[in-house]
Amino acid sequence: MTIKRKLTELSKLGEFRLIEHLTRNFKLRNKSSFKGIGDDAAVIRHGKNMLILTTDLLVEGIHFNLVYTPLKHLGYKSVVAGISDIYAMNARPEQITISIAVSNKISVESLEEFYTGIKLACDRYQIDLVGGDTSSSMTGMTISINVLGTAKPEELVYRSGACIKDLICVSGNLGAAYAGLQVLERERRIFQSDKMIQPDLTRYDYVLERQLKPEARKDIIDMFKEKEIIPTSMIDISDGLTSDLFHICKQSEVGCRIYMEKIPIDEETERTARELNVEPVICALNGGEDYELLFTVPLNKSEIITSMTGISVIGHITDADWGKKMVTRDGGEVELKAQGWNGGDP
Amino acid sequence: MTIKRKLTELSKLGEFRLIEHLTRNFKLRNKSSFKGIGDDAAVIRHGKNMLILTTDLLVEGIHFNLVYTPLKHLGYKSVVAGISDIYAMNARPEQITISIAVSNKISVESLEEFYTGIKLACDRYQIDLVGGDTSSSMTGMTISINVLGTAKPEELVYRSGACIKDLICVSGNLGAAYAGLQVLERERRIFQSDKMIQPDLTRYDYVLERQLKPEARKDIIDMFKEKEIIPTSMIDISDGLTSDLFHICKQSEVGCRIYMEKIPIDEETERTARELNVEPVICALNGGEDYELLFTVPLNKSEIITSMTGISVIGHITDADWGKKMVTRDGGEVELKAQGWNGGDP
Repeated sequence: MTIKRKLTELSKLGEFRLIEHLTRNFKLRNKSSFKGIGDDAAVIRHGKNMLILTTDLLVEGIHFNLVYTPLKHLGYKSVVAGISDIYAMNARPEQITISIAVSNKISVESLEEFYTGIKLACDRYQIDLVGGDTSSSMTGMTISINVLGTAKPEELVYRSGACIKDLICVSGNLGAAYAGLQVLERERRIFQSDKMIQPDLTRYDYVLERQLKPEARKDIIDMFKEKEIIPTSMIDISDGLTSDLFHICKQSEVGCRIYMEKIPIDEETERTARELNVEPVICALNGGEDYELLFTVPLNKSEIITSMTGISVIGHITDADWGKKMVTRDGGEVELKAQGWNGGDP
Repeated sequence: MTIKRKLTELSKLGEFRLIEHLTRNFKLRNKSSFKGIGDDAAVIRHGKNMLILTTDLLVEGIHFNLVYTPLKHLGYKSVVAGISDIYAMNARPEQITISIAVSNKISVESLEEFYTGIKLACDRYQIDLVGGDTSSSMTGMTISINVLGTAKPEELVYRSGACIKDLICVSGNLGAAYAGLQVLERERRIFQSDKMIQPDLTRYDYVLERQLKPEARKDIIDMFKEKEIIPTSMIDISDGLTSDLFHICKQSEVGCRIYMEKIPIDEETERTARELNVEPVICALNGGEDYELLFTVPLNKSEIITSMTGISVIGHITDADWGKKMVTRDGGEVELKAQGWNGGDP
């Protein structure tokens, strides 16, 4: 007779601690292994070259829904999701490999659409598709994306370098991809209940584009180089501002204070969110898939940063003991809370 | 009204031509991209360093069945499958990233088992786990494995270097993993029809180990170095001898002639195959998952090669016009035929 142990559900460990827990006994041994698990990407050193390696897995039904995601857009977005992690290290993506598992029922033409999207993104971001694997799947589609990038050692930016008083900055605006997703989900539900109703998506161009065809912020990395700015820490916003800011705080061993009114939210995001009965700021804090860059710079860079277009200063880094706070519009202070296990990146 | 196009089924393009077809318009542009799609791995050049990058996707229900695959073994095998591609380039694996998508229902303890297997393999092959991603899945488990290796430029071996008259060699023996899989499948069927019957697997130790806990042939690469042998072409046998030999022939633009009686098959594989009413040589030709190395060497290396333990010379490379043939035991000649789309590597 076997004794039944009580097993631990994945959700008990929470989203962020799972991979840490699973790999706690792993040590690096090869001298080329410079940085392992715990940042946006691994760092491999070969002579003077620093190579940045990232891996992402996109799963149908979790990360995308083929009901409303054109395969061409999905191909494009897969590349963007992968290279965004490389830019978040202040590095340059150069090679990508994409492997897919798909049902045998999918047509060659559909896969061609997917690869057309991949090629568009590779052309735009000047990266090379160098490998891949196609496999059949009994169920849904899975996409594995791996990107190799390079950086000079002195230019690399980790999650761990934020210092007290540093300014917390974010590129572009937040929450749009999440608002777009909610529109698509609403239209899907309406269409399912009455197949004669054609979805009207004309008023949601911007939020839909942010959801379906996001861009990675290569332009910000280019601007850093031009202005000779090296952030003290950086991460790309894939899980939502709060979660990703928590990664920086944890690895830098600091706290943070951000100002609700400073969080950049596009007008269309705001309008869409209100229509959907969601607080716009909630889309920005927890939405995810923005692929914007969240970074910190020393206070003395304030002038340069504020002169850069498309960058918002949303707060500053504090002592860890001060916690992670948001100042609301009425001047009150609330504790920031990261969401739990949601199937996204750990 | 939309006009329905007739769509092409994946199977129409066959296993090997699919990825070629999908990526035919992709060109390499970065000077660090030395070799893209078409070999066991991509090759990236940074100064004097050649980096080898591979990607593999293992899908539940296609590549593994959790009914009879312990998660610890699956972790170990995932690493082996990844690094085997690197050895097949005569290179050394150094870093690995493993991402998984699993149902939320899986327990932390099960994932710990999986990572214990990964760690065992990392320790044995002296490689570093440097990255990974965990994600939830609506259905089965998917594992994405990416390995980064290094080699000196002059040591790298591609699929494309085989020359006429070269000897075709293979390490170890073939077909055992396939025989092991057939035993496991038989026992699963028996168990499903009568849950009181305990599977008796005692007489299948070797073939089961080859299926459940294969090894990569690092020892052969070490031996090449020691004996100063650099094969003219090489591939690891993951899809079966015929398929993988076809890759070499295609990329080297040559033909081949192999001898049925020279194909190394273990006694237990032979016995098991006969028990299952399969010709043992069919297991070796089409079985796959052997992770043995298939390579070619110039004729003048014959003496060194035959002195090496665990290497069998199974035939020689011919002019492409002579086709791809197997000489049977009675001296007849048959055309070798690769299997079609089976969900494995392209």
